[in-house]
Amino acid sequence: MKMDDMILVSVDDHVCEPPDMWERHVPAKWKDRAPRLVRKPDGSDVWVFEGQQIPNVGLNAVAGRRPEEYGMEPTALSQLRPGCYDVDARVGDMNANGVLGSLCFPTVPGFVGELFGRQAAAGNGELAIAMLRAYNDWHIDEWCGKHPGRFIPLALPPIWSPELMGEEVRRVARKGCHAITFADNPGGLGHPSLHSEHWDPFWTACADEGTVVCIHIGSGTRMNLQDPGAPIEVMIAGTPITLFNCATELVFSDIFSKFPALKIALSEGGIGWIPYFLERIDYVHRHHHRWTLHGFPNGKLPSDVFREHVITCFIDDAAGVRNRDLIGVDTITWECDYPHSDSTWPKAPETLWASLAGVPDEDIHKMTWQNVTRLFSYDPFKHIPKEGCTVAALRAQAKHVDLTPRVGAGGKAPSDYAKGYATVGDIIKQMANAFSTPFDSGERK
Amino acid sequence: MKMDDMILVSVDDHVCEPPDMWERHVPAKWKDRAPRLVRKPDGSDVWVFEGQQIPNVGLNAVAGRRPEEYGMEPTALSQLRPGCYDVDARVGDMNANGVLGSLCFPTVPGFVGELFGRQAAAGNGELAIAMLRAYNDWHIDEWCGKHPGRFIPLALPPIWSPELMGEEVRRVARKGCHAITFADNPGGLGHPSLHSEHWDPFWTACADEGTVVCIHIGSGTRMNLQDPGAPIEVMIAGTPITLFNCATELVFSDIFSKFPALKIALSEGGIGWIPYFLERIDYVHRHHHRWTLHGFPNGKLPSDVFREHVITCFIDDAAGVRNRDLIGVDTITWECDYPHSDSTWPKAPETLWASLAGVPDEDIHKMTWQNVTRLFSYDPFKHIPKEGCTVAALRAQAKHVDLTPRVGAGGKAPSDYAKGYATVGDIIKQMANAFSTPFDSGERK
Repeated sequence: MKMDDMILVSVDDHVCEPPDMWERHVPAKWKDRAPRLVRKPDGSDVWVFEGQQIPNVGLNAVAGRRPEEYGMEPTALSQLRPGCYDVDARVGDMNANGVLGSLCFPTVPGFVGELFGRQAAAGNGELAIAMLRAYNDWHIDEWCGKHPGRFIPLALPPIWSPELMGEEVRRVARKGCHAITFADNPGGLGHPSLHSEHWDPFWTACADEGTVVCIHIGSGTRMNLQDPGAPIEVMIAGTPITLFNCATELVFSDIFSKFPALKIALSEGGIGWIPYFLERIDYVHRHHHRWTLHGFPNGKLPSDVFREHVITCFIDDAAGVRNRDLIGVDTITWECDYPHSDSTWPKAPETLWASLAGVPDEDIHKMTWQNVTRLFSYDPFKHIPKEGCTVAALRAQAKHVDLTPRVGAGGKAPSDYAKGYATVGDIIKQMANAFSTPFDSGERK
Repeated sequence: MKMDDMILVSVDDHVCEPPDMWERHVPAKWKDRAPRLVRKPDGSDVWVFEGQQIPNVGLNAVAGRRPEEYGMEPTALSQLRPGCYDVDARVGDMNANGVLGSLCFPTVPGFVGELFGRQAAAGNGELAIAMLRAYNDWHIDEWCGKHPGRFIPLALPPIWSPELMGEEVRRVARKGCHAITFADNPGGLGHPSLHSEHWDPFWTACADEGTVVCIHIGSGTRMNLQDPGAPIEVMIAGTPITLFNCATELVFSDIFSKFPALKIALSEGGIGWIPYFLERIDYVHRHHHRWTLHGFPNGKLPSDVFREHVITCFIDDAAGVRNRDLIGVDTITWECDYPHSDSTWPKAPETLWASLAGVPDEDIHKMTWQNVTRLFSYDPFKHIPKEGCTVAALRAQAKHVDLTPRVGAGGKAPSDYAKGYATVGDIIKQMANAFSTPFDSGERK
């Protein structure tokens, strides 16, 4: 098999929501209160919703920039590559990258729809659920619906109510959506933990509907910004491994013994640490279960439970690929992370192929598309002949896509590099600036 | 090579300080204020120092118990296996386990002497440094000195003053001690971070004296006790990986470019995650350095910096051993963790040997003794002929050591298992109980 013959399906990309997304799905009653994108006097665009403003921050939409300009946060829609928010352009960018399918996480609402959750907490539950359903409908019907076979729809949960979560899981399943987000540390968002029965109506619905629960990094566990003097690389390097704790909590929780059909995906967690993780949890179980009295059904080991229920993914992870037998090659998937700063776009095939040296075709197919089609109820070949799904076939359709990096596209720079390199403190200042100018001056325009 | 031919040196064990340790090393002026072990009315022993009581907590001294009784915290000296606190018994236990050499971390003072640091912070600097030096003198001269060749001495730093730290490094180096503890997250103990120049006098002295800085898990980063409903396994399984953050901070800090001779050991961190870690830090560096402007001397990669300066260790870690080429086989060391609950004592050779299947003799020797003798200025063969240092030779000297587990040795049980298994909340209650009864009633006896 050659690089060009791979079929690539990414289980972790991101959509920057387009300004017109609320036009067709919000009930008339709430139309005026839908989030809207406004231009501020400083030329930046922010979303405004119920008195909150949500700027673009966090290296979230840097695809198509030169690495020198990654830190220059885009602050206006015009500074983004259109593939960030326009689905036709997105498919073009996927084609140019040889990527067949994509599962896209939200940006403005937060990974688990916290934007709406805050409204529910403030007593505006009806508004919150209306907006959340509108978001999911837009995502499923428009973003994913326009190009059949190219997207795996991913719903947001009404995180403030497990009963509503269960209902939403069933509602979107009827529309063909079998993936939904959840938090790696719900306690970090003010909700009960993974060890609470609180979430049972949600798990029940997901197990019933064959809906994969997708837990993205940074969805409850905060990023490590504790030391303003640390190079920002400390935060970036350490974020994926934060899912180690979530993985441990899941395995030792009662969730999988109560809901044996449940599948949970760890999004952007990487895989190279999983062999160590599995060995560690088995070691701890063997050493301690006689006094803790904690056990697993049918004498299973915690590593068995993990492999049965948890789906992993990686961007570029040679050590993980080398040790795929220890992880479980039937649950490893791949991701591109477009348009975030860790993405390998537009050279994903080349980057991935280098990590796959010596791997048998059978295992490559499992990791790049077979596992994801099986586990996520995703059948692209219903819409696109398989021979049209390869890296080469897709790239052949992308001759018109301009991959030239945009130079000087603009954006807000980290405020200063007093140490000579970007520190956590510099990036905190950048983020604080993004929130500090009043949005209402923009609204008046 | 056979299992019996291995030479085992452990870079992470623990001493539970014996009651008479302060008798010979505290200056006359401070004699009355030395910590002392007192018996409380409930039959437990606690250390008392300047109004603080320090009980035994944290699965810290469970060697020789049945796994069923690990959770029964020993609360009196008589409930401990004598090898925990008596050096002759300790050497017997090492022999029974086929272990030649051991580096022992403290218990009562905390990993970086926080017990003394709190006195310094309270204005009792003279008392603090006197006690700290007495501790180090006892550890070097008595604990390590009585059985030449069997211990690698490890000093505690006067963490409240980098200048005093530098002086102590030089003082103990003159006594032959070339290892000292430090915190994985000094900020968590109220001190400046690893990215501060504050610590330069300490790094300078360590680099000058060839002193290895040993950073143990739990020395600043707190254990994950955030969710009282979580099985306690979540906390136990996740503790070693907390050093991932410290490793990242070290590599991206300015420390190694300023002190090229400095060596730092990550104690009880495990090694199976290191291949992923090294790949991740290189990936982040390559993706981001053009905008962060963070670089390394001579175009090195962060993984190069790690392998040059950081020493890793493992208890039982088959995935790490399999991937030792990715880690760097010249910096991997081994540990036993006696008498803590993760220890493989008294079956360390058998446990380790199973992980070493297929590993060439050359690599086994590096990981089990050659790296540690080279990196820690440790020369056991000056005192003991090499043929007397093997697993078989040492075990032959331990025929008298009784390895029968102590049944019903006593101790404090976790307060309740409301969920049917031990949770974080149960263990927090156990620890709180250990601190709650007043020590002064014991002092009066």
